[in-house]
Amino acid sequence: MNEQNKVAAEQRAREQALVDKVVASFETARDQRLKQVTQALTRHLHAFLREVRLTEAEWASAIEFLTAAGHITDDKRQEFILLSDVLGASMQTIAINNEAYANATEATVLGPFFVEGSPEIPLGGDISFSAAGQPCWVEGTVTDTDGKPVPGARMEVWEADEDGFYDVQYDDDRTAARGHLFNDESGDYRFWAITPTPYPIPHDGPVGALLAAVGRSPMRASHLHFDVRAEGKRTLITHIFVRGDELLSSDAVFGVKDSLIHDFVEHPAGTPTPDGRDLGGRSWSSVRFDIVLAPADTAGPGMAAYERNGA
Amino acid sequence: MNEQNKVAAEQRAREQALVDKVVASFETARDQRLKQVTQALTRHLHAFLREVRLTEAEWASAIEFLTAAGHITDDKRQEFILLSDVLGASMQTIAINNEAYANATEATVLGPFFVEGSPEIPLGGDISFSAAGQPCWVEGTVTDTDGKPVPGARMEVWEADEDGFYDVQYDDDRTAARGHLFNDESGDYRFWAITPTPYPIPHDGPVGALLAAVGRSPMRASHLHFDVRAEGKRTLITHIFVRGDELLSSDAVFGVKDSLIHDFVEHPAGTPTPDGRDLGGRSWSSVRFDIVLAPADTAGPGMAAYERNGA
Repeated sequence: MNEQNKVAAEQRAREQALVDKVVASFETARDQRLKQVTQALTRHLHAFLREVRLTEAEWASAIEFLTAAGHITDDKRQEFILLSDVLGASMQTIAINNEAYANATEATVLGPFFVEGSPEIPLGGDISFSAAGQPCWVEGTVTDTDGKPVPGARMEVWEADEDGFYDVQYDDDRTAARGHLFNDESGDYRFWAITPTPYPIPHDGPVGALLAAVGRSPMRASHLHFDVRAEGKRTLITHIFVRGDELLSSDAVFGVKDSLIHDFVEHPAGTPTPDGRDLGGRSWSSVRFDIVLAPADTAGPGMAAYERNGA
Repeated sequence: MNEQNKVAAEQRAREQALVDKVVASFETARDQRLKQVTQALTRHLHAFLREVRLTEAEWASAIEFLTAAGHITDDKRQEFILLSDVLGASMQTIAINNEAYANATEATVLGPFFVEGSPEIPLGGDISFSAAGQPCWVEGTVTDTDGKPVPGARMEVWEADEDGFYDVQYDDDRTAARGHLFNDESGDYRFWAITPTPYPIPHDGPVGALLAAVGRSPMRASHLHFDVRAEGKRTLITHIFVRGDELLSSDAVFGVKDSLIHDFVEHPAGTPTPDGRDLGGRSWSSVRFDIVLAPADTAGPGMAAYERNGA
């Protein structure tokens, strides 16, 4: 039962009058989009407060939560993105702005661990830079939705090491398990990475405390991040996931889409590698990820050109 | 027109499926109230994102906004309370938890400048502690809703100086224009303060930038804060406002209620003071504020005992 129903009409009228007053205060905005967003935010925020009859103690807890999130956030830790992620708000924003288009590869969350300035590697190079983990050969072709190769695509790739940490989570300023490369004239690409393994999102902060309080796991399904850009194409920010991972159905940030689950083939130690690389007697894995880019003008109704750092 | 109407049915279904998935993720919460609040927050947050079709650039701006708010917040500056205030969320929470009861004095926002540990002053004492401003005599009686005096009420009072700053906004650790006192056996109280003057909420941070972007003023109507507590009575957190202040209709935090507007009477220099104090030839003002406390058990449906710092 909606608690709002229990509230007396006179009280309801007072509460609604306040909503109307706040909405009206944004009428002065010259930017029509800013007016629309702030007025809608006001209406939905007040509807939430009124529906749950938020107590003053709960309001104070919310202020404390946001303050703690702000204080733990720095240039390497982004608690507000984690919060958006665990509330599904990041995935919803992606869903809104990346409507399915024909057979184009689907998008998923950016996550908080992308950083600018990754090293460039040649085709067939290795993004691991000594990050701990089993070597993993990744290859595929970038095409448009008609199957035509898209050469010159810039591919940014990043992932956690087998201990569950991204390079930026270490204190030693290392750069590892991230890099970028360009595909070839045929649209093909190939590189070495490490086999993705599951890891928890950072859960020693307020978002972790929230997940614990509601009995949710902080674990993410194993994945490898991609950001693929090519002229005239919609930018694709996505992951590939590992088929068979038991966390696929409970990913902490709701990032899994069926189409993004791929077969990572295990190769015993000693199996020859695709490029003849000598892995010193280690086992390895391989995955094929063919990427289909939508045209740049096929975004959803709310899409704006989202370019990181205004670039 | 609601933009949601323009979204194709297939896309709407995908977006709703995500909402349902996130709501379901909170089903594991053992605390039923936490489950209710997180599920409602999810529904309203996603409804907002979907209605405005939030772009990825706007999402990134929101993350940046919250990060900046977190970084400017410290033990003396609370940007998240300011944000709650300018969105009317603080006043709505107060409206929900302090339903009008008979003739009881109405509540308004706490604001970000309350601090623990104010000095105690005797009845008739002065809370200004040399804060700049015109002396103001404040007196009244604390009663219950039947008009019966309520002795032993603890009254906490705080305000900005005539330059528009609270003591905690200065760098010198001063304590000024704040204090607490107890009323007498007849329920009466009296003290010296300074005449309230208008001032802007701190607007050199992200909340100030938001107000500027939408063309809203950061000014608050002149006011004096009260926090009044007595055994068996609902705690009253409120202000009194100055009749005739031109900012009454555009208060930045929506804190004004008609019943809280009072007559501040101006007295020319040389007019005898109520307690015979010699003001050294300065003019002064006076105001009467009779306070009516509701019984403690008359709170709204969502009310919890909101005790600061768990005290």
